[in-house]
Amino acid sequence: MKETWFYESLFPSVKLGLKVKKTLVSEKSRYQKIDILDTYEFGRILVLDGIVQTTEADEFIYHEMLTHLPMLSHPHPERVLIIGGGDGGILREVLKYPVKEVYLVEIDEKVIELSKTYLPAICGNSFNDRRANIIIDDGANFIKERKRKFDVVIIDSSDPIGPAKVLFSLNFYQDSFDVLSDSEGIFAQQTGSPFLQREELPHVYKTLNEVFPFVAGFLAAVPTYIGGLFSFVFASRAIDPLKVRLSEIEKRYRELKLETRYYNPEIHLASFVLPTYIEQAVESKRNG
Amino acid sequence: MKETWFYESLFPSVKLGLKVKKTLVSEKSRYQKIDILDTYEFGRILVLDGIVQTTEADEFIYHEMLTHLPMLSHPHPERVLIIGGGDGGILREVLKYPVKEVYLVEIDEKVIELSKTYLPAICGNSFNDRRANIIIDDGANFIKERKRKFDVVIIDSSDPIGPAKVLFSLNFYQDSFDVLSDSEGIFAQQTGSPFLQREELPHVYKTLNEVFPFVAGFLAAVPTYIGGLFSFVFASRAIDPLKVRLSEIEKRYRELKLETRYYNPEIHLASFVLPTYIEQAVESKRNG
Repeated sequence: MKETWFYESLFPSVKLGLKVKKTLVSEKSRYQKIDILDTYEFGRILVLDGIVQTTEADEFIYHEMLTHLPMLSHPHPERVLIIGGGDGGILREVLKYPVKEVYLVEIDEKVIELSKTYLPAICGNSFNDRRANIIIDDGANFIKERKRKFDVVIIDSSDPIGPAKVLFSLNFYQDSFDVLSDSEGIFAQQTGSPFLQREELPHVYKTLNEVFPFVAGFLAAVPTYIGGLFSFVFASRAIDPLKVRLSEIEKRYRELKLETRYYNPEIHLASFVLPTYIEQAVESKRNG
Repeated sequence: MKETWFYESLFPSVKLGLKVKKTLVSEKSRYQKIDILDTYEFGRILVLDGIVQTTEADEFIYHEMLTHLPMLSHPHPERVLIIGGGDGGILREVLKYPVKEVYLVEIDEKVIELSKTYLPAICGNSFNDRRANIIIDDGANFIKERKRKFDVVIIDSSDPIGPAKVLFSLNFYQDSFDVLSDSEGIFAQQTGSPFLQREELPHVYKTLNEVFPFVAGFLAAVPTYIGGLFSFVFASRAIDPLKVRLSEIEKRYRELKLETRYYNPEIHLASFVLPTYIEQAVESKRNG
């Protein structure tokens, strides 16, 4: 029988190949090509414009790290904004907290609709939670209006090519700063592979630093995001993420009775430790 | 112009693809098929039986972590044994220390010969260092003879399939214990991807624990070893790797004037922090 393989087209000279059981969705929305494939090793995967966004098998790593790092660094997050995140994975993790309201602003309604149908293992019932407000809009527009304030803002977008590019700009970071409710407000965003997308983390770091007093990169390794370590950035108005004590994070984690498969309070702190070549790339950009 | 791609054949349903500039070597030794390819993203790569062993672009991550973790945990390593490591990368890192002698025991002479010719960026001049003793032999045989004692033993082999399988057995670990010179002796080994080779780290951990009082897994992410985090194991007769203080490691690192691109003393300690799913896999095997 002929094998079907999906090959990711993100990088010109490196490819991830996944053996496919079945193509569940292959259609074009107003913004992008959307494929949902059932694969042998990673279960169902969501692919936008040829790039793997998330998979059933390893989504927990990305979603836990991008949620719990900022959420547990904040003493009592009640209002949360998610930009992007149409697969519902970040929303699911955020709803594990006693939040008052969560806004999820996704530009592409189709992603939400298809995720509800084909990726219930990722979004669960989160889109139906009464605390969740789902807005179909450009995240940059939404944030510019500043109708509400938020304790935590999480940017779960695709890479800074195509529709997500604006989410990596100085203006957007300024608006994000302004939308944060008070001195404890925290912002977090994915910043790609420091090995294969070398400029992304240093560029975001430097740009955020023009707006936020505290900026720090953190790392996790997600199998389907090839390139070794994957990076994220943490920015805040007043909370130094490296000064939040392990005992305090452990206390919050325990009191919330969080159940996580990758994240734990020691990983929280360890993820801020950067290998030398990544630290140097960030520092040279900041000082250059 | 037609593109040439190399696709790794390690896993049945996941593939790494690298775009190839030129095939430099493609031959069969007594033990295995050896390919050395020049690739666009990772420079020259060494491939044994279809599996990427090391690449010019990311070898520093694997070689630094597998060398400096055990070497800097030991107060004064003077005699070092490397089993495998025919590309010379571990040897190069070990020779940065004021060691008295290093034995490198590689089963396949061809790997050393071809690495000297085609991978000077990895082995440097290390095979010609007067402290280096290169032995062409099965590492398991060599260690069984116990002619010498060593402060640090590093196993830099391929995966536990084919010729390297014996290097993951209880007998081999007992011989490794016996060959360590004194109470400070340290053993380290690569143990694959905890995500895609799920059983390997827990199995090695459990087996080593039958012989060594102290065993700990540690992690790094190597871009060409797909599957997210890559794992290693540390075992020792008396040194608890988690009790060596950061200040002591920093002092040793500074005094030796080591220059590293991935490793640093904070990464040293952070690499022992396991994500929950890896910790649970190790624990359940140990107790099971």
